[in-house]
Amino acid sequence: MQLLKDRIRKDGKIKAGNVLKVDSFLNHQMDIDLFQEIGKEFKRRFAGLQINKILTIEASGIGIACVVAQSFGVPVVFAKKTKTKNIAGDVYTTSVESFTHGRVYDIIVSREFLGAGDKVLLIDDFLANGKALEGLARLVWASGAELAGAGIVIEKGFQVGGQMIRSQGILLESLAIVERMDEETGTIVFRGDEE
Amino acid sequence: MQLLKDRIRKDGKIKAGNVLKVDSFLNHQMDIDLFQEIGKEFKRRFAGLQINKILTIEASGIGIACVVAQSFGVPVVFAKKTKTKNIAGDVYTTSVESFTHGRVYDIIVSREFLGAGDKVLLIDDFLANGKALEGLARLVWASGAELAGAGIVIEKGFQVGGQMIRSQGILLESLAIVERMDEETGTIVFRGDEE
Repeated sequence: MQLLKDRIRKDGKIKAGNVLKVDSFLNHQMDIDLFQEIGKEFKRRFAGLQINKILTIEASGIGIACVVAQSFGVPVVFAKKTKTKNIAGDVYTTSVESFTHGRVYDIIVSREFLGAGDKVLLIDDFLANGKALEGLARLVWASGAELAGAGIVIEKGFQVGGQMIRSQGILLESLAIVERMDEETGTIVFRGDEE
Repeated sequence: MQLLKDRIRKDGKIKAGNVLKVDSFLNHQMDIDLFQEIGKEFKRRFAGLQINKILTIEASGIGIACVVAQSFGVPVVFAKKTKTKNIAGDVYTTSVESFTHGRVYDIIVSREFLGAGDKVLLIDDFLANGKALEGLARLVWASGAELAGAGIVIEKGFQVGGQMIRSQGILLESLAIVERMDEETGTIVFRGDEE
């Protein structure tokens, strides 16, 4: 998605440790006009799939998911992160390992809001190691719902998440895949744009 | 807002301890069509105020804020909750006491995204004790931005938050104010609807 790649090149900041900071438009301050264009693009890429629900994860996925949902005309459910093992039987739960924060947390979704008959699109802002997205997929499968696919705004193509998710047969669409980036020169190369 | 009150009466669940569960449409599963109507209503109530930014707080405020922002044509910034004192000088930060979770946490907003010249509308899903909303207001004032007002979806009128916020001169608009509710009969009385 050219509009998004241009925006990442213009406003993204490359930091040490392969960190790409896009908090001026994606995950702290949020450019809602851009989110609407992202919604239209996901609708185009997942056309005809009869999606009836979008599932995301708190916190930064929620805003994108809610704007994208308007292009699909469906409700959004967000998985909650919790550090305390939820023992109530009324939720689906799975463990997710966070590389960023070096810990394991549980994510939960109420059984009321996901189940057989649902056709679910996963939406998130970033895909790096893929652990969060994989956790969301497990929640969908545990609920008996059908997983239509996963839509990601920015995939770090040099990390394992994309390959891991695709190897599980999940239809993954990432609007911008960063192949490599250079902190010193500030250059970003996207997949498909290599010369 | 009648549509919202009707929805709360239809799908809200009253639990022990004056808990109103609205997670089927507001803060776990999210009805985006309803959020769009909420956006139009806030736009009507805060018309002519030249708002150029919406500020909310993770997690459940983000979805509403992003859809509401479309009615205003402005970006959203969300304050992040953190348990570790952020010592970097590039953020505004304040402490918030959570009654629900019985602890104090810090909320932060990057200085890049809030400052003099901004005219800010606060948006959140719930107002009860008002500590989170008061914290957001302090961040706005600390930044030198102007606080245009605060839009709340559901205010618990029997708790102190609404009075506390209004007494500080903040223009507060709550779309549904629950005056009292009865767990046994399942009845909810909204402010303005008392006979």
